[in-house]
Amino acid sequence: MEIAELGEFGLIHHLTENIELKNPETKKGAGDDCAVLAFEPGKQVLITTDLLMEGVHFDLQYVPLKHLGYKSAIVNLSDIYAMNGRPRQMTVSIALSKRFTVEDMEDFYEGLRLACEAHGCDIVGGDTSSSLTGLAISITCIGDARPEDVVYRSGAKDTDIICVTGDLGAAYMGLQLLEREKSVYNQQLKEARERGEKLDALPPFQPDFTGREYLLERQLKPEARKDIIEALAKEGIHPTAMMDISDGLSSELYHICTQSKAGCRIYEERLPLDYQTAVMAEELNMNVTTCALNGGEDYELLFTVPLTDHDRVAAIPGVKVIGHITKPELGLQLVCRDGVEMELKAQGWNPLKAK
Amino acid sequence: MEIAELGEFGLIHHLTENIELKNPETKKGAGDDCAVLAFEPGKQVLITTDLLMEGVHFDLQYVPLKHLGYKSAIVNLSDIYAMNGRPRQMTVSIALSKRFTVEDMEDFYEGLRLACEAHGCDIVGGDTSSSLTGLAISITCIGDARPEDVVYRSGAKDTDIICVTGDLGAAYMGLQLLEREKSVYNQQLKEARERGEKLDALPPFQPDFTGREYLLERQLKPEARKDIIEALAKEGIHPTAMMDISDGLSSELYHICTQSKAGCRIYEERLPLDYQTAVMAEELNMNVTTCALNGGEDYELLFTVPLTDHDRVAAIPGVKVIGHITKPELGLQLVCRDGVEMELKAQGWNPLKAK
Repeated sequence: MEIAELGEFGLIHHLTENIELKNPETKKGAGDDCAVLAFEPGKQVLITTDLLMEGVHFDLQYVPLKHLGYKSAIVNLSDIYAMNGRPRQMTVSIALSKRFTVEDMEDFYEGLRLACEAHGCDIVGGDTSSSLTGLAISITCIGDARPEDVVYRSGAKDTDIICVTGDLGAAYMGLQLLEREKSVYNQQLKEARERGEKLDALPPFQPDFTGREYLLERQLKPEARKDIIEALAKEGIHPTAMMDISDGLSSELYHICTQSKAGCRIYEERLPLDYQTAVMAEELNMNVTTCALNGGEDYELLFTVPLTDHDRVAAIPGVKVIGHITKPELGLQLVCRDGVEMELKAQGWNPLKAK
Repeated sequence: MEIAELGEFGLIHHLTENIELKNPETKKGAGDDCAVLAFEPGKQVLITTDLLMEGVHFDLQYVPLKHLGYKSAIVNLSDIYAMNGRPRQMTVSIALSKRFTVEDMEDFYEGLRLACEAHGCDIVGGDTSSSLTGLAISITCIGDARPEDVVYRSGAKDTDIICVTGDLGAAYMGLQLLEREKSVYNQQLKEARERGEKLDALPPFQPDFTGREYLLERQLKPEARKDIIEALAKEGIHPTAMMDISDGLSSELYHICTQSKAGCRIYEERLPLDYQTAVMAEELNMNVTTCALNGGEDYELLFTVPLTDHDRVAAIPGVKVIGHITKPELGLQLVCRDGVEMELKAQGWNPLKAK
């Protein structure tokens, strides 16, 4: 169905009419000038927002809209957990061009809803409009936390240990894999066109991703580490600093060290890597450590805890101790497998920076 | 200066480093995974968001970036007032293409800041990224209100009187005026090109807007009606329903009547119009009532109060009583100057709807 048949109000209504509001804090969702929220007394409110642009943050040639909806929600949910908070509400704005159908937007919302339900987050409104070119997605997520529970980037202290969750670099390898297959497919299309063949007569393009499923999943369907936040709370461990890994470990360590006025030393041999990440890096002739440090989009948590918490934190499944905080004058150091120390560079993922 | 020289983190830092946080509720602004807010006990939190796309919501050929920043803030602030709330914080995300400079973004932020300062609103973060094509702006505004003060669209009752603030249709006439001058300018450029003239040798294009200043101001620098919210509070008047007029009076009346399960009757002769609006409509051969009903972008307030508040509300400068709420079966009626009743159609401004 064409979106023009429904119009703006019709589309918003269609997409949001079945959304159930489950949190007692949500007094009013979509349908008025504002959403109205009532937080528990004494709770602080956390706000994060992300703007995702087609062609910059996602490529619809290989990202299904349902996955895009899911991931768009996750990247915001992850920021709430990174403050040690609990996601409560989300607003979702989309600007779309004529090529999208109502069914496309249903898929996108289906993904959004799945993520929000898994994380106890109500969709409370947003904005739907048109775009002259690609799809733009803007999500704002609202969370809450007790003031004493909120964890900033600025609290890391000398000798604190540095932990990361899950493994790193796999989402980036997934992206490389998808980009490679896209090139192959586009090349086939080009050649078929040059031979004068009809494109719809081509056999369907079916790349073989066997043995790479984890990389694709990490790129297309990342998760936010609610489980870790719950495990830390259960253990009574309060991180001194925390953030989520969206731009890459190096970049995030840079933020924590700068804001905590500290240095750090991490160990290459301790960086958590999946087997598939290592194989793919080898195949692409890339340094797997570089992928883990600068790949980005892992949506894992990076946090610091006092040295005295070492044994308890190391016992949490999915948490790995990768190094420790140092005095600021020591800088950000990576201790390589051969014992050589290298300075970490916060390269990160920076589309605005000149290459 | 090219934005690439600063990079994403550099640009965010540059734009936000001088932002002062003034509200005691703002515990942490830009610079972490989330902003952290602590509202007064018992206050409810209001959230509104808007996504503005170049070429759809604004035309940079005649909208200066400073004005765009100002207006982007105002359209969100207006939604907080429309709930009878007080704006407290704002997040600002922008996606921009290579043609923008650091100075462009400084201008945009200057406008944003002016609006936020005038309305006591802290800028607490956002997202800055790149766009393959035009500029995208996503703003989320956060406000607060005592639960008993919040005004929804759904509370209008039979016999309540309907009020609007300011005047209507002027912003739309301003848009028509700017679009007309743009056409003239583009035609001159085209002809000069056809004559083979150098475009930079052309005399500067200086349209004469004398006597139309108000229309331009309404389009380029709208205001949010903080003053009216304060006046209503001072008078102890609590609207039964309220919203701001962004899509046009007809469309907003439709929302209030639908959500309040009511009808309405408004009077053409009572619609507040500025002299310049009437003159411009005449010149463009448009019906001025249609402009007032469907023009949109007025950012005035539409609200209903019990009949018993008539004299007190009518005495507030800038408030005009235009009709009253009726039983739902009577529908939405406009009583024309000649006494004929016409059904109001919620045409509004709907870029997604098929023309």
